[in-house]
Amino acid sequence: MSNTTLTQPSSHDYEVGFDIPAAIGMDEKDIQTPALVLDLDALERNIKKMGDIARTANMRHRVHGKMHKSVDVALLQEELGGSCGVCCQKVSEAEVFVRGGIKDVLVSNQVRDPAKIDRLARLPLLGARTLCCVDDIDNVAELSEAASRHDTQIECLVEIDCGAGRCGVTSTAAVLDIAKAIDAAKGLKFAGIQAYQGAMQHLDLYEERKAKTAIAIDMVRDAVAALKAIGLECDIVGGGGTGSYYFEGESGIYNELQCGSYAFMDADYGRVLDAQGQRLDRGEWENALFILTSVMSHAKADKAICDAGLKAQSVDSGLPLIFGRDDVEYVKCTDEHGVIADPQGVLKVNEKLRLVPGHCDPTCNVHDWYVGVRNGKVETLWPVSARGRSY
Amino acid sequence: MSNTTLTQPSSHDYEVGFDIPAAIGMDEKDIQTPALVLDLDALERNIKKMGDIARTANMRHRVHGKMHKSVDVALLQEELGGSCGVCCQKVSEAEVFVRGGIKDVLVSNQVRDPAKIDRLARLPLLGARTLCCVDDIDNVAELSEAASRHDTQIECLVEIDCGAGRCGVTSTAAVLDIAKAIDAAKGLKFAGIQAYQGAMQHLDLYEERKAKTAIAIDMVRDAVAALKAIGLECDIVGGGGTGSYYFEGESGIYNELQCGSYAFMDADYGRVLDAQGQRLDRGEWENALFILTSVMSHAKADKAICDAGLKAQSVDSGLPLIFGRDDVEYVKCTDEHGVIADPQGVLKVNEKLRLVPGHCDPTCNVHDWYVGVRNGKVETLWPVSARGRSY
Repeated sequence: MSNTTLTQPSSHDYEVGFDIPAAIGMDEKDIQTPALVLDLDALERNIKKMGDIARTANMRHRVHGKMHKSVDVALLQEELGGSCGVCCQKVSEAEVFVRGGIKDVLVSNQVRDPAKIDRLARLPLLGARTLCCVDDIDNVAELSEAASRHDTQIECLVEIDCGAGRCGVTSTAAVLDIAKAIDAAKGLKFAGIQAYQGAMQHLDLYEERKAKTAIAIDMVRDAVAALKAIGLECDIVGGGGTGSYYFEGESGIYNELQCGSYAFMDADYGRVLDAQGQRLDRGEWENALFILTSVMSHAKADKAICDAGLKAQSVDSGLPLIFGRDDVEYVKCTDEHGVIADPQGVLKVNEKLRLVPGHCDPTCNVHDWYVGVRNGKVETLWPVSARGRSY
Repeated sequence: MSNTTLTQPSSHDYEVGFDIPAAIGMDEKDIQTPALVLDLDALERNIKKMGDIARTANMRHRVHGKMHKSVDVALLQEELGGSCGVCCQKVSEAEVFVRGGIKDVLVSNQVRDPAKIDRLARLPLLGARTLCCVDDIDNVAELSEAASRHDTQIECLVEIDCGAGRCGVTSTAAVLDIAKAIDAAKGLKFAGIQAYQGAMQHLDLYEERKAKTAIAIDMVRDAVAALKAIGLECDIVGGGGTGSYYFEGESGIYNELQCGSYAFMDADYGRVLDAQGQRLDRGEWENALFILTSVMSHAKADKAICDAGLKAQSVDSGLPLIFGRDDVEYVKCTDEHGVIADPQGVLKVNEKLRLVPGHCDPTCNVHDWYVGVRNGKVETLWPVSARGRSY
C-alpha cells in the first residue's frame, strides 16, 4: 500500500545500520537487527477483517493509535478498514496524528496539565475534530477556558471506570453531574461516554471476559438512559478491545469500538482464548508484528544468544515467542541479549529469527522504524511517528 | 557543567511539550511529564566519587555508556571522573559515542553480522581506538578481513563467561586458542580479557556477590597467567559493575572497571546491600535519575493515577519507588498509567512526583531527553544520544 506511505527515507538522508535498519528493496535476511518487522500481507488481512466485523455489527471503529504510534498504519486502517478516526492516550500523540492527516482524534484519557490542555484546545485549528475524556467536574472549567481562549471546540466524553481500576467515575450520578457541566460549558460539547475495560481484555477465558464486560455494559446502559432522561444524547458510546469487541458489538448500547492490538497481535493476546477455546493467534488474528533478531553467540552447545534484549522490547507481559519454531525457546531477557535454549544445537551464528513480542504497545515504543516486508523483500519503512511521545 | 553540553535545543528549533519536555531556565514544576530528570548535583557527586575510587584502587574506569546512552554524560564522566573511555553493547552506540567525541570505545559484546563488522572496522577512521569482544575463533577471520579492507586496527578482548550465562568462553584453553588467532591476524591486536559477571550484580547480599566474583577472579587469573606463559600480555582485564567493583578492584588481576548504574542509580540497585548491610542508595550512591510524573486523575478517594506507565519506563526489575515519600506507593503499571495507592488521599491532581525507576538502562532507552535540574531550575537538556540504537 505504498500510496499511504508518508515518509520513505532515501539513502541520501539515512544510513542503513545507523539511522535506519533497512533499505527499500532489500532482502529480509539483510535487515539490520534487532528491528520491528511487519508482515504487510498479514497486517492488511487483519485490518480488513476488523473493518468487516465493525461494519457487519453496525459499529464505528476508532482504531487505537497508541498501540502502533504510526501515522502510516492509522491511514492504512482508514483506507482498508474504514476506521472513523483514531484514539490515543496523550496529547503529544494526538498532535502527531493530526499533523499526519487524521481528522478525528480522541485522547481517550484525562488531560489536566494546563500546558497540555492548551495544546489540546489548539488541535481543532489544524482541522481535526478533537475529543477527550473527563472524570472530574473541575476539569470542565479548565477545558472550557482553554477552548474559549482559542475559539475552538473540544468534544468531551465522560469516562466511566467499568472495572479497569484507573481513571473514570463509578456512578451514574457522577456521570450526570459532569455531563451537565460539559453541556453548559462554553467551548465544549458533550459527546457521550468512554467505557473501556482494559483490565479484562487479557483474561484467557471467553466466559470470564464476557462476565466482566456484562458488568460494564450494565453500567453504560444505566448511564446512557439517565443522560437521555435529562435530554443529553450520546453521540459516542465508546470502548471495546481486541479481547472483547464482540461483546460491546452485540450490546446494543456501544456504538464505537476502540481496538488496537488486533492489527499486530502479540504473545500475550495470542494466549487469550476465543468462544471456541482457540487461541486468538491461531484463528481470529494473524501475527503481523515481529522483532527480527540475529544469533550473535553460540559459545555453549545448548544455548544461543540473540541480539534482542530489553532495549528491543518490553517483557512486562512475558517473554517473546519464537515464531514458527518449537525446537528452540527464548528463555531469558537481559538489557541487550536474549538467551535461547537450543537443546539440539540447531541454531547458527547470524541466523535470523522472528520473535513475537510479549506485548506489542511498549515494544513498538522502543523502535524508530517499522520495516514492512512482503514476499521476503523490504517494501516500506514507516516511522514510529509518535514514539516516545508520552507527554 | 554547561561546558560539556553538546546540544542545547533552542526554542527556535524545538517546541516544549511536543519535541522537548522542558526549556532551559524553567522551574522543575513546569516540566512536561513524564520526563527523565537528572539531579545534576547528585550526578556530579556520584561521578566524582567513582572517579576517586578507581584512582585510589589504581584502576582505569571505562564507564558503561549503554546505561545512559548519552554523549553528554560520557563527557562529564571523562571530565569529572577521569574515565579512560566508554564501553557499550552495540556498534550503533559506539558510532554515536565516537561521533560525539569519545576517543576510546569498547563494544563489550560480540559483533558477528557482516554489515556491523564493516561499520566497526571503519570507526578508527574517525579517530577512535576501537575494541570489541570475541568468543568464537571463527569471528577472528571476519574481523581481520574487515579491518584489513579499511586498513584499520580493531583491538580484541577474549570474552570469558564467568557466570552470567550469556556470551563468552568458559575455559582457559578456549581463551588461548582465540587469543593466539587474534594475535596472528592482520588488522587485529590482542588487547586482553573481558570478564563481566552481569548476573551477580543484583544479588542483595554482599557475601553472595563476593563468592560469585571470587569464581570469576579465579577464572580470569588462570587465563591471564596462561596467556603470559605464551607471551601474550593483557593490556586490559576488564569487568566489574556497580554491585561488585570493590572485588575486582582488590583482585590484583583486573585493571579496568566498567560501572554504569552508579551514576544514576535505580530501585533495583538500591535494594542491593553493601558490606555493612546498608542499601546502596542510602550510603554509597545517590539517586540522580528520576521519572518526573504528574497525578492526572483521583476519581477514587484512595487511589491516584499518574501519567508514567510502561511507555515511560521498564518494569522488568520491579516497579518504581516514589522518592522521598512513604505515605503513597506506586502499585501498578499499565501502558500509559501508573496506579498510586494513596490511602489518606493526600495527592492532588497535577501534583508532581519523582519516581526512582526500577531499572535505569531500559528506562533511559524510551526517552529522548534528560532534563538536568539544579536548585529547582532546568539547567540543561541532554539528548539520549544513542536511544533506540540497538542494532
